[in-house]
Amino acid sequence: MSEYKPVTNEVIEALKAAVGSEYVLTEPEKLDAYKTDEETNPHYFHLPEAVVLPGSAEEVAAVVKLANQYKFPITVRSAGTSLAGGAIPVCGGIVLLLERLNKILEVNHDAMYMVVEAGALTKEIQEIANKEGLLYAGDPCSADSCLIGGNIATNAGGNKAVRYGTTRNQVYAVEVVTPTGDIVEMGARLQKKTTGYCLEQLLIGSEGTLGIITKATLKLQPLPPYRFDLLAIFTEVEKAIDIVPKVIKAGITPTSVEFMDNSFVRSTNDYCESRLPHYEDGNYVIITVETFSEDELDSKMEVLDTLCSENGAVEVLEADERVWKLRRSCQESVRIISLVSITDDLVVPLDKIAETIKFVMETGKKYPFKVMTLAHAGDGNLHFVLCKCELADEVWEKEVAKFHAEVYEYAYGIGGRLSGEHGIGVKKLEELETYTAPGELLVMKTIKKAMDPNNILNPGKLLKI
Amino acid sequence: MSEYKPVTNEVIEALKAAVGSEYVLTEPEKLDAYKTDEETNPHYFHLPEAVVLPGSAEEVAAVVKLANQYKFPITVRSAGTSLAGGAIPVCGGIVLLLERLNKILEVNHDAMYMVVEAGALTKEIQEIANKEGLLYAGDPCSADSCLIGGNIATNAGGNKAVRYGTTRNQVYAVEVVTPTGDIVEMGARLQKKTTGYCLEQLLIGSEGTLGIITKATLKLQPLPPYRFDLLAIFTEVEKAIDIVPKVIKAGITPTSVEFMDNSFVRSTNDYCESRLPHYEDGNYVIITVETFSEDELDSKMEVLDTLCSENGAVEVLEADERVWKLRRSCQESVRIISLVSITDDLVVPLDKIAETIKFVMETGKKYPFKVMTLAHAGDGNLHFVLCKCELADEVWEKEVAKFHAEVYEYAYGIGGRLSGEHGIGVKKLEELETYTAPGELLVMKTIKKAMDPNNILNPGKLLKI
Repeated sequence: MSEYKPVTNEVIEALKAAVGSEYVLTEPEKLDAYKTDEETNPHYFHLPEAVVLPGSAEEVAAVVKLANQYKFPITVRSAGTSLAGGAIPVCGGIVLLLERLNKILEVNHDAMYMVVEAGALTKEIQEIANKEGLLYAGDPCSADSCLIGGNIATNAGGNKAVRYGTTRNQVYAVEVVTPTGDIVEMGARLQKKTTGYCLEQLLIGSEGTLGIITKATLKLQPLPPYRFDLLAIFTEVEKAIDIVPKVIKAGITPTSVEFMDNSFVRSTNDYCESRLPHYEDGNYVIITVETFSEDELDSKMEVLDTLCSENGAVEVLEADERVWKLRRSCQESVRIISLVSITDDLVVPLDKIAETIKFVMETGKKYPFKVMTLAHAGDGNLHFVLCKCELADEVWEKEVAKFHAEVYEYAYGIGGRLSGEHGIGVKKLEELETYTAPGELLVMKTIKKAMDPNNILNPGKLLKI
Repeated sequence: MSEYKPVTNEVIEALKAAVGSEYVLTEPEKLDAYKTDEETNPHYFHLPEAVVLPGSAEEVAAVVKLANQYKFPITVRSAGTSLAGGAIPVCGGIVLLLERLNKILEVNHDAMYMVVEAGALTKEIQEIANKEGLLYAGDPCSADSCLIGGNIATNAGGNKAVRYGTTRNQVYAVEVVTPTGDIVEMGARLQKKTTGYCLEQLLIGSEGTLGIITKATLKLQPLPPYRFDLLAIFTEVEKAIDIVPKVIKAGITPTSVEFMDNSFVRSTNDYCESRLPHYEDGNYVIITVETFSEDELDSKMEVLDTLCSENGAVEVLEADERVWKLRRSCQESVRIISLVSITDDLVVPLDKIAETIKFVMETGKKYPFKVMTLAHAGDGNLHFVLCKCELADEVWEKEVAKFHAEVYEYAYGIGGRLSGEHGIGVKKLEELETYTAPGELLVMKTIKKAMDPNNILNPGKLLKI
């Protein structure tokens, strides 16, 4: 661990000189808002010594240079929607907000790209693309509130990743302030490139540890005008999930394939006060298909319908808004079961997701808490929620740790990884160290140490250095 | 530049102990075959001190450890089809061949992936996928002779990149021997992942400077059963190329979009002794569409036909085997114009390719050589060929350098890069240094120096260190 120095008055003055007095916050009541992100467990909370709001990449670079000079850490915070504690300043120092860098700088309809600053709202980016008859395909579940810089830094996933990939597939180039304070453009607005190292992909998903993203050039896609949402209901989990590779191989290219187990079918129906079919015994698979012609949509729906029926669906329906409402209410619906819960994120090979869900469910039976599962099934990304209910704190924490260890062990055994879209942050720091092969870990640390010799950027996250 | 030591008898003995006596070649006549790759200019030739053929990743690692111990450089050679001098041991040392690592280790039809050793033939990989009714979408023009390890190390492009991307998009994971001799799995067979740094994409396209790829897990795709090839002939270059973004935006998702200027239309017709339409004034655009249903194919062809006609095509035909024969003969056909020629590779934003081709053609008129252009137009990747004809060596070299400088300057001015698929190798080493922004170059060099402190792997390539 690096030796950091406190953010003294001298540092505060230097920061104010760099970004303007009104953009350096030090009042305790203001700092308090930045002690955590979506994390609710006070165990993780940590107050920053100051919050800084630079207004340009040049100002970000100036702040980074000060951090190297005075040896204080920087934690970049986007919208604070991290589920891995990514925006908590666990080593103190300053929290850097990019919300002043919120401009959409260019929308090019013909060449299908958009240039945006890091603090632009993801939702706004999506809407502007749509107005142009185009699609920005990044669509994290927090799209209403999250900012694009955070999406890129964490390689956010979401509901459209089956067809379009995660955020790393939506980005041509990023402007990055390096850990030593250079402003560097990585990547280019090109369809292909073999001109030096692919730095942009290294930066994307590095969770703010290798550079601060200040600007991005995003890919836009043609917007398919036709859409159909299908709900296939299965009484057996395995049959529900087994449909997924068949859908992919039939060339359907679905936009999303979502799975909800029967616990979630019940909790969301209760939460929304609805009673959709097979409340008692159904597992839901929601498949969205979007096409460029009505004929293509019709023929794909026909293929899908046959596939679902042949694979044991007890009912195949059009998934209207009521179904999507259930899907969107999953997280909130847990509260009617347990006030305290833990959501986890895991990714396994696509062909292993059925057995993984079964393993999670079976393993859960040995534990004194309820386990619920849902999944972006089309890309092998599983979320499971553990419900504390009335369990004592001590038992809860111990048992959760044991359960996680069993599940991670299993996942790595079949080629899975700790996170499909939530990232490592501070919450899985120990686990990354435990489950990553030593050679791979060594390469990651070698790169981090070389690029950030003073360990300034987001220390205490992703890698134990 | 590092201080290397000669490959002494002691080193040779150590290498023989590591991989077996018969797999260390030192006879001058055998070494001679490895002094160059596709490069024909003797200026670049360099003899290796030994050629080593390890039989496993463990043996590769042992050789790399010896290189660090005895300070000799390693140049990995795949099939030697590099057009950038990538396989030439410009700093001496050893050439490492991976042709003994040539096994297809696993083909999984249901989960749509293949595990192969680095020395497997790309063509064999394609054929095995096809036999399974699946597609390996990497398809460099040298697919008949190249090996997969080289494809991955150089992020090879080719004819299918418009739809499927380049080699970096076909790879789940690579097994890599690091520059310090660890065997590390980078990446995983997952649809999404936010679990540490994206090392696999950093390695892919690093041209053997950051690690030696020994094994790869490749993505397979569903194989579209329906196909149509269309030839649209335009008398104006700009109109020919302007069609490209329209095709993309119409949601056609073509598999390839190839462009040949009239010089190539003439030379290939002459070379193949054929007379396809508009020999005198035609520029050819060949578009391939592949689909999963006949209806989809029909409707896409209809849209395409309309687009081409509306955009000024003088003729729109089915592109039969004769047309593809012309396309494949481009490189060879140059010889009937000039025995000596230089092929270059450049990539620009998709919406800038028309003006770039025009710029290249116009600029060429000022020079004492003939300039011919063809392009993987669907991804902004342009190849131009300069024909020496009867020009004196000195004039030729000087004028080529001047021409390249003009074109590269122009390309960078519009956001282009030095290489779309051929790579930097030794041939564009100076240019990468000249045209890359200092900050970006610094990050590349920082990573290289940290990962390869003794500058063992492929020195004198990609980066000047």
